[in-house]
Amino acid sequence: MGLTVGVDIGGTKIAIGVVDVDGTIVAQDRLETPATEPGLITDAVARAVAGLKERHEIEAVGVGAAGFVDAARRTVLFAPNIEWEDERIADELERRTDLPVVVENDANAAAWGEFRFGAGADVDDLLLVTVGTGIGGGIVQAGQLNRGANGVAAEIGHLRVVPAGIKCGCGQYGCWEQYGSGRALVRQAQDRIQAGMKEVAALSALVDGDPSRITGPLITEEARRGDPLAIDLIADVGRWLGEGIASLVAVLDPSVVAVGGGVAKAGDLLLDPARAAFWRTLPAALNRPQAAIRRATLGNDAGMIGAADLARSHA
Amino acid sequence: MGLTVGVDIGGTKIAIGVVDVDGTIVAQDRLETPATEPGLITDAVARAVAGLKERHEIEAVGVGAAGFVDAARRTVLFAPNIEWEDERIADELERRTDLPVVVENDANAAAWGEFRFGAGADVDDLLLVTVGTGIGGGIVQAGQLNRGANGVAAEIGHLRVVPAGIKCGCGQYGCWEQYGSGRALVRQAQDRIQAGMKEVAALSALVDGDPSRITGPLITEEARRGDPLAIDLIADVGRWLGEGIASLVAVLDPSVVAVGGGVAKAGDLLLDPARAAFWRTLPAALNRPQAAIRRATLGNDAGMIGAADLARSHA
Amino acid sequence: MGLTVGVDIGGTKIAIGVVDVDGTIVAQDRLETPATEPGLITDAVARAVAGLKERHEIEAVGVGAAGFVDAARRTVLFAPNIEWEDERIADELERRTDLPVVVENDANAAAWGEFRFGAGADVDDLLLVTVGTGIGGGIVQAGQLNRGANGVAAEIGHLRVVPAGIKCGCGQYGCWEQYGSGRALVRQAQDRIQAGMKEVAALSALVDGDPSRITGPLITEEARRGDPLAIDLIADVGRWLGEGIASLVAVLDPSVVAVGGGVAKAGDLLLDPARAAFWRTLPAALNRPQAAIRRATLGNDAGMIGAADLARSHA
Amino acid sequence: MGLTVGVDIGGTKIAIGVVDVDGTIVAQDRLETPATEPGLITDAVARAVAGLKERHEIEAVGVGAAGFVDAARRTVLFAPNIEWEDERIADELERRTDLPVVVENDANAAAWGEFRFGAGADVDDLLLVTVGTGIGGGIVQAGQLNRGANGVAAEIGHLRVVPAGIKCGCGQYGCWEQYGSGRALVRQAQDRIQAGMKEVAALSALVDGDPSRITGPLITEEARRGDPLAIDLIADVGRWLGEGIASLVAVLDPSVVAVGGGVAKAGDLLLDPARAAFWRTLPAALNRPQAAIRRATLGNDAGMIGAADLARSHA
Repeated sequence: MGLTVGVDIGGTKIAIGVVDVDGTIVAQDRLETPATEPGLITDAVARAVAGLKERHEIEAVGVGAAGFVDAARRTVLFAPNIEWEDERIADELERRTDLPVVVENDANAAAWGEFRFGAGADVDDLLLVTVGTGIGGGIVQAGQLNRGANGVAAEIGHLRVVPAGIKCGCGQYGCWEQYGSGRALVRQAQDRIQAGMKEVAALSALVDGDPSRITGPLITEEARRGDPLAIDLIADVGRWLGEGIASLVAVLDPSVVAVGGGVAKAGDLLLDPARAAFWRTLPAALNRPQAAIRRATLGNDAGMIGAADLARSHA
Repeated sequence: MGLTVGVDIGGTKIAIGVVDVDGTIVAQDRLETPATEPGLITDAVARAVAGLKERHEIEAVGVGAAGFVDAARRTVLFAPNIEWEDERIADELERRTDLPVVVENDANAAAWGEFRFGAGADVDDLLLVTVGTGIGGGIVQAGQLNRGANGVAAEIGHLRVVPAGIKCGCGQYGCWEQYGSGRALVRQAQDRIQAGMKEVAALSALVDGDPSRITGPLITEEARRGDPLAIDLIADVGRWLGEGIASLVAVLDPSVVAVGGGVAKAGDLLLDPARAAFWRTLPAALNRPQAAIRRATLGNDAGMIGAADLARSHA
Repeated sequence: MGLTVGVDIGGTKIAIGVVDVDGTIVAQDRLETPATEPGLITDAVARAVAGLKERHEIEAVGVGAAGFVDAARRTVLFAPNIEWEDERIADELERRTDLPVVVENDANAAAWGEFRFGAGADVDDLLLVTVGTGIGGGIVQAGQLNRGANGVAAEIGHLRVVPAGIKCGCGQYGCWEQYGSGRALVRQAQDRIQAGMKEVAALSALVDGDPSRITGPLITEEARRGDPLAIDLIADVGRWLGEGIASLVAVLDPSVVAVGGGVAKAGDLLLDPARAAFWRTLPAALNRPQAAIRRATLGNDAGMIGAADLARSHA
Repeated sequence: MGLTVGVDIGGTKIAIGVVDVDGTIVAQDRLETPATEPGLITDAVARAVAGLKERHEIEAVGVGAAGFVDAARRTVLFAPNIEWEDERIADELERRTDLPVVVENDANAAAWGEFRFGAGADVDDLLLVTVGTGIGGGIVQAGQLNRGANGVAAEIGHLRVVPAGIKCGCGQYGCWEQYGSGRALVRQAQDRIQAGMKEVAALSALVDGDPSRITGPLITEEARRGDPLAIDLIADVGRWLGEGIASLVAVLDPSVVAVGGGVAKAGDLLLDPARAAFWRTLPAALNRPQAAIRRATLGNDAGMIGAADLARSHA
């Protein structure tokens, strides 16, 4: 079987790529997301796919989208960032492109991509932990994507790690993503600047003392330069990550936990503390086979590549 | 296909049953577990199966055992209560009984039993939470038992629910089973008796003021009689249960969560507070399809029935 | 000795009263706080005192003000709600009124008032816990107001009760006042309304489904009518209160803990759960003499009466 | 005024010293504690005092003892380690020695010693935190020992720092002394050895792999040699210490927090992380005057010296 198209619809960008059976991107396109008018998104995707179809022999289309996707993998029931409600994407795209279409949650698509061609290519059981502003994830077990009964499995960022903890955007308290994410990293840095602690001087200078200008990449960069505070802030997020992973490994028993997302660009500054915390807090660590914590390898393309491959399996 | 035998090897008892395709127990046997000499267990099981085989047309044997079972489902790698290490149960039993044998973790077997013939018979995705002295569990997803990469998935009792919390037998701190189990129920009752609080009078009288004689069933009985303290103690365990289930549902997205084990005999005294806590702490509760929390229906036979059925699927 | 004036400067109102040696208010006045221009406050107070002085034989003036007061009790160093910085209130008022003036933190003044004429009149050691939007307090030990080395003792609302807990306005996480205050009560009610739980129907109807209109008094009123949810919400705040009081009693060993502030108007709906939680969580409860948890008795006048009496002790 | 005797009755040793007005020990004696027969303790102390009285002009005796001491400071109501119940020590010793006697809780006596002649000699408000197996303490405010209404104030080791946390010997959960003490230090080291983590090799070798032989001094020694794990374990205890001190400073507002006890011998290995955690978690740190965290200076003699001085103030 030949080429398929993978589409990753994010809040601000849409990534579209022609992907071969080995997960290699043969051609790609990138569009702004016309987020205000939902219908325009399908329209834009349809046109882009049509363009690619002229130049490549495409057999199917896979779409990854943030939100809850129905069990038949054809309709987005609810999306947090786009005004979609029961948006019948597959029907519409099939009509417009004359190709079979499958829709999947974007984090699931990324997990599938890493499983097939990335950090989990050598195993059957993978947990992908995507650490960006929040924490997302996807689960592959026994070579199958674990979608859950309703397609909303792997909302791992909302594992409660602190009872009565920090309030989360989801309405709950103490969710993992309030402690082990980019948002937590930035918040902790801002706290230190506001508290006027002396060790924050270098970081504070980078933003002219304005805590609101702190970003995750800036902290990572500063840590790479050797700033002990920045290193410590990233390590603290890593510690929370590793502790949460220990709970998830007790439940899911994967062979590999791949850590992706923007914050994972900090590399071992994040992953070494995560691994240490993982081993320290894994139940019965001595008596159970070990899961490896690895950095995800496909970067931002994981969702697109995974969606393309899901279209292939499905077609 | 006809009859299979299910064997559930516990720390003190071995339950053996002939089970038909509908999960009905046609005949059964119960033995003491000769725990001190591991070889004797296989011996006893082999003889019992041989006896049943004379009277029934048996096609396969399924064994559920506490412990880590290898990926091929033939060998117990490690067991907490029996001195087994790499015990090749399947090989030995096949040689002795001349029947195909499959081995499975006992909690997994119970989950499979509930999925096939019990609380999850109407769905494809089930989480079984077994609340006894500790908390165990099993996961069925998309109609498949989720064994994990190493057969040790679903160690849900060791989800960490309180950072730096109560020390657990597994070596970690704050594990779920320190809060939502029979052990927690008894410990809380003992604390109240030792603190000499007046509302504990009725419960204390039942054990002549000796906290060490408190048991879970005794508290449940007392709660059924309307003792507000006993009701409150069970509700508190239910609250922790429901909060942990909320985290697990965010990760696994099952259709049904079945609650079994000895403590579940408290029924709605336990499950109503669990359900309330579940809904109160489920992330994005309004935007996600709902999982039902039900009581498991097969009781102590779940493991035996499940093991028998796994042998059938396997044969 | 005769009459003194007590002044309680709040963020929106100034209460001024002529108080006799028994703590009885002989005459009183209430002004708006001209908060935008700090100088105007002293001006307004001076004029009001002058007016009272014409009709009463006044010997001294005591001023209670929110904020940090210097060790000499003459200057407000910093105030959270008024733009004061090193405001020399005593000097200015003495010059304008020709009376000796003493300044005290308002919560300390209220604790002193309750100690001299209210809930602690029969003991030597009192802890006042003021439960309003946040939690404030004052400590009297061995008959002396415990101001601390810098006049900022008794910031009990910022005792950390949950590590990595809810973010507090003070910049920290997990402060007691995020759990045991009016703010917590309202937040919990809003959470329930937003989660659309059915038991919230009555409460929600009172505010036409608009969570932002929920107030503490409204919840209390609803609880008095017997609404189980409202009763439960207040009990939950009471539980956190009692648990925090247990920690404070271990540190301070008072005879009486008086609970005042707006939320205390819920009476035993709040205090019974607080007492139960207190006894359940008090360390070594059986081996230590017991502190009584009582409702404060002077209401909003505690600060004014306390300030007047402090002026008397000082003069 | 001249010399007084200070007596510090511990679980295994009794320290007795003749102390002058400057807190200097002029002569001293050390006895085994005859703990099994309570009467023998008073007997031994009386004989030792009589001996010292022959050689020194002694004016009074101060006794520090672990336990709850009555308000008149003459009787030990209850002691955790000695079988005393309403033991009238002052009466008995006065009869036997013909000297005025005052009894005080040993931690209070130590706080008084540090306040008069040690780490708090330059301030009026001191909090002593004694970090040994558990955590004890004493509070001096405005130059007065704060005994509480019942003489049981400053049980700071039982401040709850983790809700539903580690079970404490006092019957409660999550007490500070389960995290910031020598017991916590040893427990964490044992956990690491049992978990077989590789970085524990050096520490493990010191005790031939036997976790039960780990002690606090051994960890400190190993940390001084530069072992990163030992340094980390002490820092972790220091972090919990500093976070608890932040809560206590919010309540008590001392000028100085002195840290004593056996674990404080780790010096800045403990205190630097404690100070960092203190500043990071102190509420409104920028707007409040600062408390200094210092090491206590009188070591094991603090209780004896303090008791001697309390006898002087009292005589």
